[in-house]
Amino acid sequence: MIAETISVGTELLLGQTLDTDAVFIAQMLSRLGISIHFRSTVGDNRERMQEAIRLALSRADLVITIGGLGPTMDDLTKETVAEVLEIGFQEDSEHAQWLRELLATRGNTAPPPSFMKQALIPEQGRGLPNPNGTALGALFEKDGKIAICLPGPPNELVPMAEQSVEPFLLERTSGARQVIVSRVLRIVGMGESSVEERVRDLMLGSNPSVAPYAKTGEVHLRVTARASSDEEAQAMISPAEAALRERLGDVIYGTDQETLEQAVVGLLIAQGKSLAAAESCTGGLISKRITDVPDASRVFGLGLVTYSNEAKTQFLGVPKILLDEFGAVSPETARAMAEGARRAGGADIGISVTGIAGPGGGSEAKPVGTVQIGLAWEGGSMSRHERILGGRADVSYRAAQGALALARRFLLHPNAPEFLAEASSERISA
Amino acid sequence: MIAETISVGTELLLGQTLDTDAVFIAQMLSRLGISIHFRSTVGDNRERMQEAIRLALSRADLVITIGGLGPTMDDLTKETVAEVLEIGFQEDSEHAQWLRELLATRGNTAPPPSFMKQALIPEQGRGLPNPNGTALGALFEKDGKIAICLPGPPNELVPMAEQSVEPFLLERTSGARQVIVSRVLRIVGMGESSVEERVRDLMLGSNPSVAPYAKTGEVHLRVTARASSDEEAQAMISPAEAALRERLGDVIYGTDQETLEQAVVGLLIAQGKSLAAAESCTGGLISKRITDVPDASRVFGLGLVTYSNEAKTQFLGVPKILLDEFGAVSPETARAMAEGARRAGGADIGISVTGIAGPGGGSEAKPVGTVQIGLAWEGGSMSRHERILGGRADVSYRAAQGALALARRFLLHPNAPEFLAEASSERISA
Repeated sequence: MIAETISVGTELLLGQTLDTDAVFIAQMLSRLGISIHFRSTVGDNRERMQEAIRLALSRADLVITIGGLGPTMDDLTKETVAEVLEIGFQEDSEHAQWLRELLATRGNTAPPPSFMKQALIPEQGRGLPNPNGTALGALFEKDGKIAICLPGPPNELVPMAEQSVEPFLLERTSGARQVIVSRVLRIVGMGESSVEERVRDLMLGSNPSVAPYAKTGEVHLRVTARASSDEEAQAMISPAEAALRERLGDVIYGTDQETLEQAVVGLLIAQGKSLAAAESCTGGLISKRITDVPDASRVFGLGLVTYSNEAKTQFLGVPKILLDEFGAVSPETARAMAEGARRAGGADIGISVTGIAGPGGGSEAKPVGTVQIGLAWEGGSMSRHERILGGRADVSYRAAQGALALARRFLLHPNAPEFLAEASSERISA
Repeated sequence: MIAETISVGTELLLGQTLDTDAVFIAQMLSRLGISIHFRSTVGDNRERMQEAIRLALSRADLVITIGGLGPTMDDLTKETVAEVLEIGFQEDSEHAQWLRELLATRGNTAPPPSFMKQALIPEQGRGLPNPNGTALGALFEKDGKIAICLPGPPNELVPMAEQSVEPFLLERTSGARQVIVSRVLRIVGMGESSVEERVRDLMLGSNPSVAPYAKTGEVHLRVTARASSDEEAQAMISPAEAALRERLGDVIYGTDQETLEQAVVGLLIAQGKSLAAAESCTGGLISKRITDVPDASRVFGLGLVTYSNEAKTQFLGVPKILLDEFGAVSPETARAMAEGARRAGGADIGISVTGIAGPGGGSEAKPVGTVQIGLAWEGGSMSRHERILGGRADVSYRAAQGALALARRFLLHPNAPEFLAEASSERISA
C-alpha cells in the first residue's frame, strides 16, 4: 500500500507552525509498512486543496489529510475530499445530538449549520470518533482508494490515529503487510565521503538499504529493512550491520539514539574510571554534555570553564610562562589544561579544549576555528589540532565532539601509538 | 511572485526528522511578501524528485529545494533540477581548488568525482557560497523560472539563505511588493497567562497583530504588521511595541533574536562588572550560554562545574558541615556556591545552581525538579527556590534561565528589597 499525506493550513505555509502531525503520521505508516512517496502541504484554499487531493489520489492508494475539520469557515477539508471523490454526507445522529447538548450547556439552543457539519460522515465510509474534540474524523472509501481526514490539533489527531486509523490499516494490510525497520549506526572520527568510500558496495542493495547522513561532527549510517514482521526485518538488518561494522570498526560509537557522551560515560563506568574537563572555547559544553547523561555523577565530579588566562593558571596550574610563550591556544596549553583538570578533579583522565571560536580573536597564524584538544592520563598527555569551519556555535560543538571522541579512543585503545608515543616523550608542562 | 519549496530526503518521509528547514524558508519568503501555495516533500528517488520539481515549476515562479547537495550517491537534487530545466554544469574553479586542498590536508590527494561535484555550478545561473560546508548551493534561472538548491543541514542552509538567497529575492521582488514584518518582545519572569491578562486589549487588532507564544522558561510576544514597505510596517509596529512595553515594564528583556544571556552580558559590559558561575545540576549550561555571547570574555573568566560535593568544598569553599547538615540542594549550599564562585573568579557577581535534575536522586522532601539558585554580590547573598516540572533537560534549561534572570534583575535593581534585605541579614556560609 502506498500513502500520501496532505497537511492543510495557511499557518503551515507561512512557517508559523512546525508540522509535528505529519511526522507522527509518517512514523505510524512506517511502522505499518506503508510507503510514503510524497508529502504535501496546502493552504486553506478550496481550489488548491482540490488540486492536491486529486493529485494524491492519482498516485496513492491511501490519502490522509491533516487539519481543517473544525467548525469555522476556513475548515474545508472534509467537504473538499467528498467533492473530489463524489461522495455525499449523512449526519451521525448520535454525534449530532451530543453537539446540540454541548451547545445547550453553553446557552446556545440554535446550533449554526457550520457547527453541525462536524457531525457529518461519508455515505461511503464512516466517521472516526474524536475523544478530545467536537469534530468527527472521516474515512472515505471508493474504487479501491481510501481517504482519511484527521483533525489538526495534536491532542485530537494522536488518539484518533491510534484508536481508529491504526487498527483499520493494520487489518487492511494484514496478510500482505510489511513493516519497515531502521537501525542507525553512529560514527565519529571519519568523514561522510570516507565512510561511503569504505562501504559503497554495501550501499547498493535496496532491502535492506544503507544510507549515510552527515550530522554536525559525526556521520550516521541508516540501515532500513522491509519485511513481513519485525523479527524478519531485524534478521535482515543484523548481517548488514555486521558487514558495516567489519568495514568500519570502532569508529562506530553507538546505535540509534545513543549519543557520544553516553558512549564515553558508558566506557568510563565499565572501566571504573573518572573524567575531569577543562574548557575554554567550548565554554562548558563538554561538561554539559557529559552531565546530560543520567549516570554521569558516577564518573564526573569536576569541570572547569577557565575562560581567562588567570583562571587557567590559578585553577589548572598552567604556567604563566607557557601562556606567554605559546599562547592560550597552543598544544602546550591544551596539554597543561588537561593535566590540570585531571589533577584538580582527582580523575583518571583529563580532557581540555582551547581554541578561537570567533567571530573575533583570529589571526593569520591562528584563524577563527583553530582548536587544540588536550588529553591527560596517568603517565602522559597529548594534544590534537583541529581546524573547524563555521560560526561560533559550530566551532564549539565540533570541538567538544573532538574532545569526547579523543577520550573515547583513549578508553578503547590506551596503547594506541598516539598515546604511547606521547606518554614516553618528555612532558612540556609542569 | 509565487514560490514552492521541495524538501528532499527519505528520512523526512519516514518521520525521522522534523522539517525545520522548510519552516525557516517559509518564514523568509513571508517576510519578503512572496506567497507559497504548496509545499512538498519527496524521498531520495530520482524519478519522484523529477516529478515533484516539474510540477512545482509548472505552478510557481520560484522553486526552492532543500537537501540532497552533499557528496554521496544519495545526493541527487542539484543534478535532477538541472535535468528538468535542461541546464548544464560547469566547475567553480576556485571552490574546486579549495576542495582539493581540504582533502589534501586530510591526506587524500585523489578527490573522488562524487566529492568534486560539490563544486559544480549551473551554466545558466550561479553557485551560492556555503560558509559552513563543502557543497555549494545553486541558483538556476531559465525562461522566467528560478530554482534554488539549498543544503539540508540547518547550519549550512540558514547562512546561505540569509546571505545569498534573501538579498537576491529582495532585489527581484522590489516594486509591487507587500512586506510582512514582525518584532518579537522576549519576556522572562512572567507566565503566558499573566502576560496575556495584562495586554489582552492590545491583542485585538489584526494589523499590526499581537500574539503570545509560550517558550521554555520565557514568553514571546510577536507583533506583526503588513504594509507596502519595511519603513511603513516598522512605523505601525513601533506604537504597538511602546504600548506593550508600558504595560509590561522590564520583564521584557530583549527583542527579536536577543537571548537572555546576551542581555545579561550586555548589562555587565555596560556596568563594567564581571560574573562567575558555579553549577551543579545545570552541568555547565550557564557557562555555555554566557560564553555563547561573542563578547563574554570581557565579563566572564571562570565557571566551575562542581558536580561532586568534594569539588564544591575544594573549589568553592562550601563548608563540609553545611553540605552534611543541609544537603547539596539547599538554600545554604546555593548561597555558599555563589559566594565561592564570586571569590574564586574574582568577580563582582557570583551565580550558582544546585538541584535535582532527575531521573534519579529525588526524595519526598526534595523531589526531582527541586532547584536552588544562588546569587552573591559585594556585601550579600541570597537564594531562590524553584520547583521545575519536566525531564532532565527541562530542569537544567529552566534552572539556568532562572539564574540568568536573577542576575539580570540584580543588575537592573541592586537596591530591590530582595537584595537589600538579604544583604543586611546574617550570612550563613563562611
